[in-house]
Amino acid sequence: MLRDARSCRYGSHRVLAPKGALPQAAQRLDATPVARENEILCDVEMLNIDSASFAQLRASCSDDPKRIGDAILATVRERGKQQNPVTGSGGMFVGSVREIGASLAGTIALTAGDRIASLVSLTLTPLRLDDVLDVDLATGRVGVRGTAILFESGAWAKLPRDVDERVALAVLDVAGAPAQVQRLTLPGGCVVVVGADGKSGILVCARAKQAAGESGRVVGVVPNARSAGAQLLLEAQLVDALVEADARDALTLRDRVREVAPSGADLVVNCVNVAGTEQGSILCAKDGGSVYFFSMATSFTAAALGAEGLGADVTMIVGSGYAPHHADIALDTLRENPAIFAHYNATYGRTS
Amino acid sequence: MLRDARSCRYGSHRVLAPKGALPQAAQRLDATPVARENEILCDVEMLNIDSASFAQLRASCSDDPKRIGDAILATVRERGKQQNPVTGSGGMFVGSVREIGASLAGTIALTAGDRIASLVSLTLTPLRLDDVLDVDLATGRVGVRGTAILFESGAWAKLPRDVDERVALAVLDVAGAPAQVQRLTLPGGCVVVVGADGKSGILVCARAKQAAGESGRVVGVVPNARSAGAQLLLEAQLVDALVEADARDALTLRDRVREVAPSGADLVVNCVNVAGTEQGSILCAKDGGSVYFFSMATSFTAAALGAEGLGADVTMIVGSGYAPHHADIALDTLRENPAIFAHYNATYGRTS
Repeated sequence: MLRDARSCRYGSHRVLAPKGALPQAAQRLDATPVARENEILCDVEMLNIDSASFAQLRASCSDDPKRIGDAILATVRERGKQQNPVTGSGGMFVGSVREIGASLAGTIALTAGDRIASLVSLTLTPLRLDDVLDVDLATGRVGVRGTAILFESGAWAKLPRDVDERVALAVLDVAGAPAQVQRLTLPGGCVVVVGADGKSGILVCARAKQAAGESGRVVGVVPNARSAGAQLLLEAQLVDALVEADARDALTLRDRVREVAPSGADLVVNCVNVAGTEQGSILCAKDGGSVYFFSMATSFTAAALGAEGLGADVTMIVGSGYAPHHADIALDTLRENPAIFAHYNATYGRTS
Repeated sequence: MLRDARSCRYGSHRVLAPKGALPQAAQRLDATPVARENEILCDVEMLNIDSASFAQLRASCSDDPKRIGDAILATVRERGKQQNPVTGSGGMFVGSVREIGASLAGTIALTAGDRIASLVSLTLTPLRLDDVLDVDLATGRVGVRGTAILFESGAWAKLPRDVDERVALAVLDVAGAPAQVQRLTLPGGCVVVVGADGKSGILVCARAKQAAGESGRVVGVVPNARSAGAQLLLEAQLVDALVEADARDALTLRDRVREVAPSGADLVVNCVNVAGTEQGSILCAKDGGSVYFFSMATSFTAAALGAEGLGADVTMIVGSGYAPHHADIALDTLRENPAIFAHYNATYGRTS
């Protein structure tokens, strides 16, 4: 037992309840803004609430920015972290390094004053908020004044100089998806991306198209084919076919996808931010294919029992926010595709 | 569009709400006990409530069989199916075939009067209950009088003549797990089974040991090493090492498993029926390894955000109740292992 509660690399020393839990599973964290020897203390300027959580907050607060801000303040005050009590999900933050603990300083490529984005979920990040300054309904960005703690195991990225900070934040929030899809897509394979025109879906289509190659096929499913994101997919040739369907209507989704991909997909990637799309996604996969659930609105039981009920022999994968080099892969997707870069600047940038 | 709402193979014609949903995702099903042309109508004698759901029912009903029965009756009356409103999970039923629809009759190896177990979840099975006769607290078996509908896509198994019906029911309820683990385990691999002494865990250990072979290693994690199931694992050599740990205490679990498997597992199989064991399971896997979540108490967000927070590069798989030949693989696990057969007879059989 080498573990020392004072300096657990996973931050278990910050867990107030329940006993033995790790920070993500904890009900309450100690968010005291003092860096322990293996922690990084940050001044937080902005939260990027994850898409499923923000959709829930908008709905439950009737799109009122003030009420959304109050709901976030209440959660953080009660739990010492921003974890949506309904969706269980969080988001990430942007801020600057105030202090690096003694045992970490010099061992990592960070110094006080560096501007960073956290690459671990807010659901495990000790957070204290003094104020919510503004809530952007369109993007889920929340301007705040507060402090956060990063643990030794916590991933972070220095904000790049060549990408608008707000754009970088949007892209880093979903960085796991393009990196995971890049390695799951086989050359010549058929990939169906459900929710293809959203923040993660566009990056996923770009990486899937690249990995599937000339002989492969990428199908994008969108709720509205006239959206700016959907048009980008066609114009930048990020998909071979675009399908308009409500992913919650499982049988219609399956029928429309099968019209352009009759054998079904080797890999289905679910990037939507609404509940109830598990079985539709499963029905788009061929026998022996895989379904990668990146959506935080995914229900474990709906997926597990749904596949059983359909008699579908598919491998269903829980999308993780982490994969090696995921931040670079996500940002490079912008740098390598000027049309995508322009779209993210227009959608998430300072002038948007 | 070849789909005809009158005879959808997935049973969408039985969905009352919401529109467009498949039966598993539906809020309410039409459980009218009349077989349509592609349906099987069954007289139901027994429900086998799934482990996570039954644990929740026992806790919320203070272990009172009468209250558990009433809760089940209320759910089925309201929703036309048995889907635990808290866990979202169901179970399966045993009964006999009353009527087979005209377009199915003759095309399947079933005739009226055959005794069968359903191999699809109760969460998508139209069910009508006249009465709950008895509730067995030890096993989750609930004697009932009622009727159920099986769809064209629904799997079922004739009850075998050489296995006690109650034992067959227990085994068939978890049939997906040993079949999935058999094909996920590589020769020479290290497999850690969390919840190894339970209904699914024992079968999983047996199949993992067989598939991993002489050079492989199977580690069973149990909450109590003196339980009958744990002793069976040792005596029948279904595991190479037994570890006693509370799977909810992630760091202790990891430390104890690493004592007997220092490099971590190629495959971790989670078979527990309590919440909060996602991160502990993830920490037992080596980098690049897989975690197979068979537990219906698994939280999707806890797994996804947990792996991200730990910076763990593991493939997390949603355990499906379906795999080709799963009923045969599960029952054969008993037939090939007399010690397991005896244990299941003692635990789930008529004399238990």
